[in-house]
Formats: sequence, structure tokens, C-alpha cells
Amino acid sequence: MRLRKVKGAAETIAAHPNIVVQNEKELKGNWQSVFEKEQPLYIEVGMGKGQFVIGMAQKNPHLNFIGIEKFDSVMVRALEKVIEAGELPNLKLLKIDADELTEIFEENEVAGVYLNFSDPWPKPRHAKRRLTHENFLKLYQTIMKEDGAIRFKTDNRLLFEYSLASLSQYGMILQDVALDLHKREDLEWNVMTEYEQKFSAKGQPIYRLEAVFAQEK
Amino acid sequence: MRLRKVKGAAETIAAHPNIVVQNEKELKGNWQSVFEKEQPLYIEVGMGKGQFVIGMAQKNPHLNFIGIEKFDSVMVRALEKVIEAGELPNLKLLKIDADELTEIFEENEVAGVYLNFSDPWPKPRHAKRRLTHENFLKLYQTIMKEDGAIRFKTDNRLLFEYSLASLSQYGMILQDVALDLHKREDLEWNVMTEYEQKFSAKGQPIYRLEAVFAQEK
Repeated sequence: MRLRKVKGAAETIAAHPNIVVQNEKELKGNWQSVFEKEQPLYIEVGMGKGQFVIGMAQKNPHLNFIGIEKFDSVMVRALEKVIEAGELPNLKLLKIDADELTEIFEENEVAGVYLNFSDPWPKPRHAKRRLTHENFLKLYQTIMKEDGAIRFKTDNRLLFEYSLASLSQYGMILQDVALDLHKREDLEWNVMTEYEQKFSAKGQPIYRLEAVFAQEK
Repeated sequence: MRLRKVKGAAETIAAHPNIVVQNEKELKGNWQSVFEKEQPLYIEVGMGKGQFVIGMAQKNPHLNFIGIEKFDSVMVRALEKVIEAGELPNLKLLKIDADELTEIFEENEVAGVYLNFSDPWPKPRHAKRRLTHENFLKLYQTIMKEDGAIRFKTDNRLLFEYSLASLSQYGMILQDVALDLHKREDLEWNVMTEYEQKFSAKGQPIYRLEAVFAQEK
């Protein structure tokens, strides 16, 4: 996500506590209380401008969603989109860093994790910052139910190669792998991100995987 | 491998027992006896016309190789190439079907398995014939040493997607995945197959994975 500082972003965010949760530290273990209905909770880590998580929430009213983003300047764009879409009872936004996940969510509180077009951090010395690094997998495993899945899309070949090996070496099981997602049939379930629209329109392959942790936790 | 019947193939094969092993049933547990030196044994299942396994044997005199192929008409092409290359002391050919592997090789007798451009068997009802189906993985696991790896290359996207999931679901761990092998640097270790030369020359991506069985056998 390229960053441009947005003037007044923090103020705009603070003015919408009904959409961007402000009391996240108090909600650990009690996230269902912020939604209209108690139903499985999915999170997107690094939602960017929010098109994906908004689309998922619209398409799946029987599920709850939280879009997570750490940068004010990006969060404010997602917030504007939520307002524009008309506030959804099954969607909240949350401004935290991914490494705080286990401070914010209780064990087993999350049904599934979405990662989309995450920052590739191409330099080997930055591998620990990739959202599919084992340190992050450990966090997802902690907050997810045992049968919870990670669903990850990217256009970045090297990040995808890294991620397949990283998840596998952590002990995760690949349930499905697509090496050119948009060549698949019956894709009506797929909600596109901003990047995905752009890259797939250019004919670049979109990679996708779905993986679960081994039976034993 | 497209098949054209080759006249006299069986006779030509039978005439070269020094290259194409004929007494395979007697060699179970004793394969090292057919080579000049006792050294780790690698097999290629479905060697086709043999360019890969011949290249590997030439490049790695410290390893033994067996190229396996079930069709006479293909085997005879590989045999001709071996004769042309000058008989190698660390290479033998073997005409069996992949499902016979555990009848021919003893447990732990093989150091590693190569699969290259295997028949994709695209129809779901033929999935069991794919060389990365769990039934075959079980055979490789039986004949391989515990730390043995499967190394698999293909240009077929759907077969590669299937294989990633199949190996993972069997409990194998992906050590390395390349989604466009020829974009990698330092590829001097890579021996190309006939298909690989053809497809990579056209700019098509070559997929490759390297996977081991979990620690426990």
C-alpha cells in the first residue's frame, strides 16, 4: 500500500467509533458484542482501502467481518468507502498492527483470516515482516478456531512461493491452490481487491491459497 | 509422452541388458550391485526419452540413477540416447510401471525421486493415475529414506496446483517451490528435460517443487 499522508485522518477516524472500533483492548473475548448478530467472525489483516472486506460483508450477511489496517492514511480511505456503501451491521474496522492480534482477540475467537496482496518485503532480511512468516502464522493459529483457514491472494510470485513453503513448514495443510485464479470457472464467490482488479485486467496471474492448521493445535 | 509404435523396440531393449536392467525382480534390496560404485540412488519415474536422467548422471558421477519408463516405444528412444552418450557407470534404465515400485525396491533403498512433466491426466476420474496422487506418494515414501525428497517439475498449471495440495494433504512438507523456475538465478544445477527446453523457450513458466515426508515415517 503506497502511503500518502491524509490531512485530518486521525480526526475523521476518531469521529466514527461506530465503524472504526476505538475500545479494542476491552473487547478481547467479546467481539461478538460489536455486531448486530452473533455469527462467525472473519478478519482481513491488511485490508488496504477496504474494497475486499466491504464486498465480503455485503455478500455474506450471515458472517461478521473486521478489516484491520495499521495506517491512519489508509484506514481513512476504507472508512470513507464504508460510509459510502452504507454502514453494514456485520462489518467493523480496526486500526492495529498485525503483531498485536493476540492482545486483541481471544483464543478461538476468529473463524478465519484473509490476507490479500500483502506487502512482499522482498529483501531476505525483511522476511519476518511478511504476513505469512511463521511468527504471524503463530498469531493466526492462536486466535483462530481449530478448523479455521487462512485464505491468501497475491499477484507477487516470490511472496507466493515463499508463503507456500512457509505455511507448509509450519505444519499447515494446503486445501486449495490456484496459480491463475481468474482462469477458474465458477468464481462468483470471489470478491476482488483493488489490486486484483488492476492486475488481472492486465492479464497477470493472481495466486491464491487456502490452508488450515494440522488437526492438533 | 505421445506414443508412436517403434518396430523392433522390445528386441533392441532385450539386446542391451547392461543398460536396461532385465532381472529387476531379483534385485530388490540389492540395487547397488548393478552400479560401479555404491552411492546414493535416485530414480526418475516416467523418464520419457531420457534427456534429464542422462544429464543428471553425467553431472553427478557421485550419485547413481535409474530412469524408469513403462513403454517400450519410449524406452527404446532413451536407450539410444544412453548408447549415444557413451554408457555411464552410474545410470541404468528400468522398464516397469510406477505401481510396481515397492515390488522392485526395498524400503529405504532410494535416496530421492524425480518426477518431470508427468502425464497430467486432466479428467477428475483419472486423478488416481497422476504420479502425485496419494497412492503413488505412499509408494515413494516406502522405498525412500526418511529424509528423501520428491523433486517435481511441470509446465502444467492444473497438475501443479493439484500436486501442491495432494502432497500437503498427505503430510509432506514443501521445502522449495518455484512458480517460474527459469526466472531464478544460479540455475546451473538444473538439468532440462526435452519438454522443459521446448516450453521455456516459448516463455511458458516451468513449475517446480521439492518436498519431504514429515519427520515420522
